[in-house]
Amino acid sequence: MSAIPQDFLQTTARLSAEVTEPFPKSRKLYQSGSRADLRVPIREISQDITHTSSQPEENPPIYVYDTSGPYTDPELQIDLMKGLPALRAAWIAERGDTEQLSGPSSEYGVARQNDPALAALRFEHIRPPRRALAGRNVSQLHYARAGVITPEMEFVAIRENNRLQEMRNDPRYAALLRQHGGDAMGAQLPDIVTPEFVRDEIAAGRAILPANINHPELEPMIIGRNFRVKINTNIGNSAVTSSITEEVEKLVWSCRWGGDTLMDLSTGKNIHETREWILRNSPVPIGTVPLYQALEKVNGKAEDLSWEIYRDTLIEQAEQGVDYFTIHAGLRLAHVPLTAKRLTGIVSRGGSIMAKWCLAHHQESFLYTHFEDICEIMKAYDVSFSLGDGLRPGCLADANDEAQFAELKTLGELTQIAWKHDCQVMIEGPGHVPMQMIKENMEKELADCYEAPFYTLGPLVTDISPGYDHFSSGIGAAQIGWYGTAMLCYVTPKEHLGLPNKQDVREGIITYKIAAHAADLAKGFPGVQVQDNAMSKARFEFRWHDQFALALDPQRAIDFHDETLPKEAHKVAHFCSMCGPQFCSMKISQEIRDFAEQGMNEMSVKFVESGANIYKPV
Amino acid sequence: MSAIPQDFLQTTARLSAEVTEPFPKSRKLYQSGSRADLRVPIREISQDITHTSSQPEENPPIYVYDTSGPYTDPELQIDLMKGLPALRAAWIAERGDTEQLSGPSSEYGVARQNDPALAALRFEHIRPPRRALAGRNVSQLHYARAGVITPEMEFVAIRENNRLQEMRNDPRYAALLRQHGGDAMGAQLPDIVTPEFVRDEIAAGRAILPANINHPELEPMIIGRNFRVKINTNIGNSAVTSSITEEVEKLVWSCRWGGDTLMDLSTGKNIHETREWILRNSPVPIGTVPLYQALEKVNGKAEDLSWEIYRDTLIEQAEQGVDYFTIHAGLRLAHVPLTAKRLTGIVSRGGSIMAKWCLAHHQESFLYTHFEDICEIMKAYDVSFSLGDGLRPGCLADANDEAQFAELKTLGELTQIAWKHDCQVMIEGPGHVPMQMIKENMEKELADCYEAPFYTLGPLVTDISPGYDHFSSGIGAAQIGWYGTAMLCYVTPKEHLGLPNKQDVREGIITYKIAAHAADLAKGFPGVQVQDNAMSKARFEFRWHDQFALALDPQRAIDFHDETLPKEAHKVAHFCSMCGPQFCSMKISQEIRDFAEQGMNEMSVKFVESGANIYKPV
Repeated sequence: MSAIPQDFLQTTARLSAEVTEPFPKSRKLYQSGSRADLRVPIREISQDITHTSSQPEENPPIYVYDTSGPYTDPELQIDLMKGLPALRAAWIAERGDTEQLSGPSSEYGVARQNDPALAALRFEHIRPPRRALAGRNVSQLHYARAGVITPEMEFVAIRENNRLQEMRNDPRYAALLRQHGGDAMGAQLPDIVTPEFVRDEIAAGRAILPANINHPELEPMIIGRNFRVKINTNIGNSAVTSSITEEVEKLVWSCRWGGDTLMDLSTGKNIHETREWILRNSPVPIGTVPLYQALEKVNGKAEDLSWEIYRDTLIEQAEQGVDYFTIHAGLRLAHVPLTAKRLTGIVSRGGSIMAKWCLAHHQESFLYTHFEDICEIMKAYDVSFSLGDGLRPGCLADANDEAQFAELKTLGELTQIAWKHDCQVMIEGPGHVPMQMIKENMEKELADCYEAPFYTLGPLVTDISPGYDHFSSGIGAAQIGWYGTAMLCYVTPKEHLGLPNKQDVREGIITYKIAAHAADLAKGFPGVQVQDNAMSKARFEFRWHDQFALALDPQRAIDFHDETLPKEAHKVAHFCSMCGPQFCSMKISQEIRDFAEQGMNEMSVKFVESGANIYKPV
Repeated sequence: MSAIPQDFLQTTARLSAEVTEPFPKSRKLYQSGSRADLRVPIREISQDITHTSSQPEENPPIYVYDTSGPYTDPELQIDLMKGLPALRAAWIAERGDTEQLSGPSSEYGVARQNDPALAALRFEHIRPPRRALAGRNVSQLHYARAGVITPEMEFVAIRENNRLQEMRNDPRYAALLRQHGGDAMGAQLPDIVTPEFVRDEIAAGRAILPANINHPELEPMIIGRNFRVKINTNIGNSAVTSSITEEVEKLVWSCRWGGDTLMDLSTGKNIHETREWILRNSPVPIGTVPLYQALEKVNGKAEDLSWEIYRDTLIEQAEQGVDYFTIHAGLRLAHVPLTAKRLTGIVSRGGSIMAKWCLAHHQESFLYTHFEDICEIMKAYDVSFSLGDGLRPGCLADANDEAQFAELKTLGELTQIAWKHDCQVMIEGPGHVPMQMIKENMEKELADCYEAPFYTLGPLVTDISPGYDHFSSGIGAAQIGWYGTAMLCYVTPKEHLGLPNKQDVREGIITYKIAAHAADLAKGFPGVQVQDNAMSKARFEFRWHDQFALALDPQRAIDFHDETLPKEAHKVAHFCSMCGPQFCSMKISQEIRDFAEQGMNEMSVKFVESGANIYKPV
């Protein structure tokens, strides 16, 4: 921990080289909105020309929703020491409903700011925090209900569409836009996402736009079942391992590979300082579990927690810019005995802390009793609620039990209270659930929590896959995403075994990008099959470079291809290593197509001659 | 290729060390059947004692279905040069319906046997082949319909049960046998598998027991929707890469990690000799696509294929001991034009070869016209049909189209013909299918193919995941397995990019073991949750060594755990690297349980005193 900023300078230098490098055949575009400072990032993949026997065929560029932030923009100079540009600063300021404070208003924030021992760890360019003016509410839900379309809402509308309208107007995309009818399971997907649609979904509570006014670096995104399914990644140090530099590197890495939001689950030392570094360098919304830090403040003794300490922690983190808080307010005293017969009890850290507190004091949780006080804080900074599932099942045996569903019911009650305050809410979900019981989770959430967005961890569909839990949870994630979950919290291969390293983060993200994309396809979100179709066409035509570029992880596709056929010549070859040059089904299939086209003409003559029987079986 | 047997001796030595090593905390048992030579392998995992505050609690051993064959039996001396013991030789001989030939009866088999140039490549201990006596039918389906329970059928009954009855009779398993109700989607799962149930399922055509009389080394297994879901692995050299030693090593590796059957898809040189090595060393059923070798015989020119060459290849391979043949007899001339508008045409190698032949000759496929002749060969050796889906979709855009379903319908017609001959049949399925369209595949297969077992490749639920296609296909595999598919053909991370190496095979297998197990859980196959429950209990009690041993891939679980906490002391620690010692939810949860147990008594007094209101919210 003491190696900062020495470490940091090195990391900065390395990141600049490694992470600002664009993806193969890709460039970053910005699509403009209704105002000059509204520029939505998008990745454009160029495609090679198809050489046919007749004339060359142009293949149009393919667009990819881009979470990577300024890091993949070669025009920008990245400096982790300074943080990212404050993209939304003007939007926030011009609403005129906030004030800039002179410094942190939390006791802990002040103490950390004034501690000279932390100078070496501290992010240098801390802005004084911003807060709603007295009596004002700065949440996107509040604006949405007032009929205001914020620049943030317009931003996500453009982002969700991913140039769909432009493609529809361009004949080159006609074949690529072909898409199967989806089964949206009751979701009401838009044909095209308009800013008004975004506003309406937020106003109805069916979507949230997490965007703390103290995180102006954030590129707005939306979480809701009528939009693209999103994924969250978790990072964070613990008492055992990891440093600030590692965490910031994982953040940048996470954005590069497609993480839509990121939770900093640090539980070790210097949580406050780590978070500042992460926020100032993050283009994606950041979530936390404030309870973890509150517990550190009472030296890990759950019984010693109090509303006052927790409240100060909320303010501290809200003023740093955290975009959503996991709050386990649905775990009530009466729920705790319901877990006593479970095979694995309470596996949520937040849940177990609060359960212990409730039992020790034999009182209702202060998160529950002070819930309206929490709402007051949330709306002063626009922090979104992620209502935690402290009683989620930790194994198949405990899935869908009384404890889990009792808490879910309470989360629904809290949702109504939060909405009364115009606070944005999403609901966290399990966990470990066998496939046949996943749907019930989604259905109950929609009913009990009034269609607030669902945000689930997996679920894992078996307990016996340590080392591969990214995958066994990915199976459940794809299904629950299809059924209506708005955001999928990734799981890495290290789940249940250790803390993920950088490569584990990448593996977990791509696994979850697959699950989320599979869910989008199954629901039938407009335009999402374009990339699949482009890939399939490139595959059929042996455009290897295009196949790599269109892959979710181009680098891995290239590496794997090169293991067998490393030469550049093989990347233009009309065969691959699976069958070799003499034996390729794609090649034969193209011959069949040519043959058939030619044959059809000859045969159509015969067809008439033979009395239309030519294709009848002999 | 020329390095055999030099290579082979080295491989043998290395395999002995690497593969005969038992899994952690595991030993191989043999459960006896009704006769002394009927010994069913099973892996027993011992568990540590739980140390509670009161008295130590014994944790009973857990049993795992064991596909690894003699390779994990430390009592046996493995010698790849000699092959495995002929486990079933007596069973086959004593039925008295076969004869031992003096040598191969295929022209090609004779030619290869007499070619001195092949001496260095040839497996040394080739047995002369066995064939049904004239007019006899040696298929398990034939016996089943005659009311005969073969030793093979009894073997699979014991194997499928996996000691379920013994566990039910043992009170130590009471809690571990707890299992959620499944949704079997119309499958009729047995409460316990009896030999008579096995016979009946085979007789009805709902299951196959692939077991060529020339593959006596095989440990019988069953493929059917009312049994455990199975997985197949593919290996095979191509013109570009791989040698015999590599292929045999992949076979042994595949069995070790849980492959239930294996297809040798070699298309390169010396296919015949490679196959002999594989068969003589394989405890699992081996499948092939005979068309690949037939094509080699005509130098890769599809038009030059003929029934005579194909027929000779079937006999050649049947006499070596191949247990099931993929035969693309359902691809008819009339289907070919249905593929012309597809995005990726025909992607099945067998399908594209036959389509080309049909078009070139403008004739119905000889596989279709000679189907009854093929049946005659199949029943003389008990080779099972795996009716190939030559028109499976190669991308999402082509999923569930007219071509695919027209061929499926024909496969149903052929199933009826094969059944008329008492030949065993399974049906191959796709491919690339988005999630919302998977179920239709299963429903149509059950209807059109009269409940013959379905055997699918994935399906992949997106096209944009090269490098991770094991996973995107695993999502589809888990779902279609749940819906009723009997066997899932694995996909490795190298799919679409290159040929898998040993580690890719392991990765693909474990991914598919997860999918198959998730499907068993979802269907509610009796007893399959025991391993999950044992894992969960071990997790809750911090029995790290038990967690590793109960994992599908114990070695990876150990390696990943050791990356963060390498010391032996950490494997008995009551915490893990995710949260550190002060902050463990499992630990807190155990405290809650103790607290609750103690507290309940105190509280029950208060409960009465307070008018039963103690758990009411404050």
